[in-house]
Amino acid sequence: MSFVTVSDVLAGKVSVGTTVTVRGWVRTRRDSKAGISFINIHDGSCFDPVQAVVENSLPNYSSEVLHLTTGCSLAVTGTVVESAGKGQAFEIQATTVEVLGFVEDPDTYPMAPKRHSMEYLREHAHLRARTNVTGAVMRVRNCLAQAIHRFFHERGYFWVATPIITASDAEGAGELFRVSTLDLLNVPKTEQGEVDFKQDFFGKEAFLTVSGQLNAETYACALSKVYTFGPTFRAENSNTSRHLAEFWMVEPEVAFADLNDIAHLAEDMLKYCINAVLTERADDMAFFAQRIDPTVIERLQHVVSNDFVHMDYTDAVEILQNCGKKFEYPVSWGTDLQSEHERYLAEEHVGAPVVLKNYPRDIKAFYMRQNDDGKTVAAMDILAPGIGEIVGGSAREERLDKFDQRLAELGMDPEDYGWYRDLRRYGTVPHAGFGLGFERLVSYVTGMTNIRDVIPFPRAPKSADF
Amino acid sequence: MSFVTVSDVLAGKVSVGTTVTVRGWVRTRRDSKAGISFINIHDGSCFDPVQAVVENSLPNYSSEVLHLTTGCSLAVTGTVVESAGKGQAFEIQATTVEVLGFVEDPDTYPMAPKRHSMEYLREHAHLRARTNVTGAVMRVRNCLAQAIHRFFHERGYFWVATPIITASDAEGAGELFRVSTLDLLNVPKTEQGEVDFKQDFFGKEAFLTVSGQLNAETYACALSKVYTFGPTFRAENSNTSRHLAEFWMVEPEVAFADLNDIAHLAEDMLKYCINAVLTERADDMAFFAQRIDPTVIERLQHVVSNDFVHMDYTDAVEILQNCGKKFEYPVSWGTDLQSEHERYLAEEHVGAPVVLKNYPRDIKAFYMRQNDDGKTVAAMDILAPGIGEIVGGSAREERLDKFDQRLAELGMDPEDYGWYRDLRRYGTVPHAGFGLGFERLVSYVTGMTNIRDVIPFPRAPKSADF
Repeated sequence: MSFVTVSDVLAGKVSVGTTVTVRGWVRTRRDSKAGISFINIHDGSCFDPVQAVVENSLPNYSSEVLHLTTGCSLAVTGTVVESAGKGQAFEIQATTVEVLGFVEDPDTYPMAPKRHSMEYLREHAHLRARTNVTGAVMRVRNCLAQAIHRFFHERGYFWVATPIITASDAEGAGELFRVSTLDLLNVPKTEQGEVDFKQDFFGKEAFLTVSGQLNAETYACALSKVYTFGPTFRAENSNTSRHLAEFWMVEPEVAFADLNDIAHLAEDMLKYCINAVLTERADDMAFFAQRIDPTVIERLQHVVSNDFVHMDYTDAVEILQNCGKKFEYPVSWGTDLQSEHERYLAEEHVGAPVVLKNYPRDIKAFYMRQNDDGKTVAAMDILAPGIGEIVGGSAREERLDKFDQRLAELGMDPEDYGWYRDLRRYGTVPHAGFGLGFERLVSYVTGMTNIRDVIPFPRAPKSADF
Repeated sequence: MSFVTVSDVLAGKVSVGTTVTVRGWVRTRRDSKAGISFINIHDGSCFDPVQAVVENSLPNYSSEVLHLTTGCSLAVTGTVVESAGKGQAFEIQATTVEVLGFVEDPDTYPMAPKRHSMEYLREHAHLRARTNVTGAVMRVRNCLAQAIHRFFHERGYFWVATPIITASDAEGAGELFRVSTLDLLNVPKTEQGEVDFKQDFFGKEAFLTVSGQLNAETYACALSKVYTFGPTFRAENSNTSRHLAEFWMVEPEVAFADLNDIAHLAEDMLKYCINAVLTERADDMAFFAQRIDPTVIERLQHVVSNDFVHMDYTDAVEILQNCGKKFEYPVSWGTDLQSEHERYLAEEHVGAPVVLKNYPRDIKAFYMRQNDDGKTVAAMDILAPGIGEIVGGSAREERLDKFDQRLAELGMDPEDYGWYRDLRRYGTVPHAGFGLGFERLVSYVTGMTNIRDVIPFPRAPKSADF
């Protein structure tokens, strides 16, 4: 007798006739008039449950088996047999059923077998992984995370843990969470009446990071190819289906690379990840296609089998101005594109992911590499049909004189960027990188529209439960 | 002509006679009297640099090549040839040398080619990855991280992102960092004069997590086998070589597993990771053996080729009391073992990693599974020779009545553990898990004694630079 997963049984990895034990939770129980019960058992290892056929000759049939309800935990030992029923190739002919845990009061079990709203599941985030939908999301999420690590590792990239707590609002992204151990009822003050952060844990004001990029650059300028994969934070007070206060980001940073290099890197990475999901999680994807978004598989197959289309921002503005479509926000050169514009380009004009390049420098970050035209920077966004911006990246300004000039134009103090400037003073190299919001990718791949449903315990304004 | 890494050239992956371009930084330059310069170029892809042989017939030989110093960046194009020199099998006969970036003032370059103290390197954390020692540490660190993901993925575990920001001091570990957006100069108060956290971003007091365990349990009770790998935090005011305020933890959580199962899981994981380093990073390990700890490779080989020894806490106390060795702290049943005791057991008594099991319940956490003796809990620590505790784990109390009884004994309010209790109310299952401090593992594997030298940007009291 050996312990096996439901996944192994259903995939035919256990020979017919073998005696095995599966352990998991009851999804459904059905009793036939002939005194046989059919119990569907899931253990999270794959989408489908395995069916155990339990005869009334078992000693605990009346006392326990007939009392099993959704969510009860059990260990079933029996023989793997070919299934005569529809929907599964194999099932288990049970010889013993050991109940591990009943459900306290089946009538009030929060995950009772009926359709729950996504809102309701969010309120029960500690139990929702037991449902079809959240289980499937989290397996796909894991598959994507593993694929990301594998993709970079196979290509000689080193994973770098950039700091979560940081004393510099380096990206200037604002909207920061403060990290502190000061007593809020007795905040120490300086003689000038300001907060005396010298007395705080880190001896200065500290925040949660909004991006690992600047730190990752220091490692790219030594190890050449690196990437981060870690949590980042935004204290934005926006309660939307696209924002989280805490989310995971993937940020490769590549020495000797230019804008086109990282655009292709991002395209290769996205295709690699999507292929991994289509291959390894076909069971979960079939569910998403059936219940969440009928076009999801088709959409992903289209992404992996077509080249991304490269387009200059300037050309995109012209296309949008001349397309004859009425937008809520007008388009003019020098303004940021709105979601409606991005979606038009990706969905209607091109019908595939678009790499939009060379944005006006005034709407982009200070560290981006200036193009020779004096107006644009080597930045790119990848816009995907159905979701909009999924990747944002740029070449970094590696020329010290150009960098200092830009700081001066923006009224920023070079002193604040001492260590970042050092990279440009000592053996500077062209380098570039991008950021991928991991939850946005999970959302895109599964078709789940609310980003709070693709991370186990979402954090948002007024919401940090569990 | 194609771009290749130094690693590919040195490993013989590029055929002799091929024209390639390598890009990287000058480690050293030596000029022969015959008018030939030998430039060692590193790009971080492996420990060793590749040698480029540059003849004075190159047009920029006098104007640039002869001015190259440590840290300058360049792209060298040339033919891969077998090396006549010692220490490398292949080198590059340069046809062009393109200088990408000089070092501003070589005399003050912080990473000039001399022996720097570890303290000094820490103060220059943005440049230290350019040194032999930090480069080697970070490649090994990456190798370990990749091995951890691979180990769990191959065994059907799902990576789960447990929350970084949490509103519950769930583990009761104290020493928390507060996360807040409140204005410290104008802290809102309730009528009772307390801080009004309702007005804070999350609507309640929020902290940085000390462990993902309790959240991971909710996922193990649905997907069966999960693990976390993410940052955790301690606001401990201890400025030691073994503590960080921010560090990464690996926490598998396994449904249907008991204490022995997870002890073996930890043993398998550690051996898998160490084997990966010995195989994949032999270059860096040779350096650690030469410069940091002469016994490091031997020590690791000993770990992978011997079974860990299991021992009960009660037996360990008896061994320590009767061993005739004088300890600073006396040993008696019921007290926690000190580092000197742990090291004696692992290093002198056993001479291999020890799995110490079944600790007195009063010195362990409330959630650990009570043993039938009424005195101990199913907890284990793995003690490794040379470093002490490297893994800590336990079976979790899955029986609601026992759990509630323990809360009552400790004067804890069951209301505070509502969602955690739900796991015991609805289809409870035996489960167990452990935690591994990732930096402690990197420390152990490399022989680096200060934990601040094995994480890119260490955070500690009064220290959050970069």
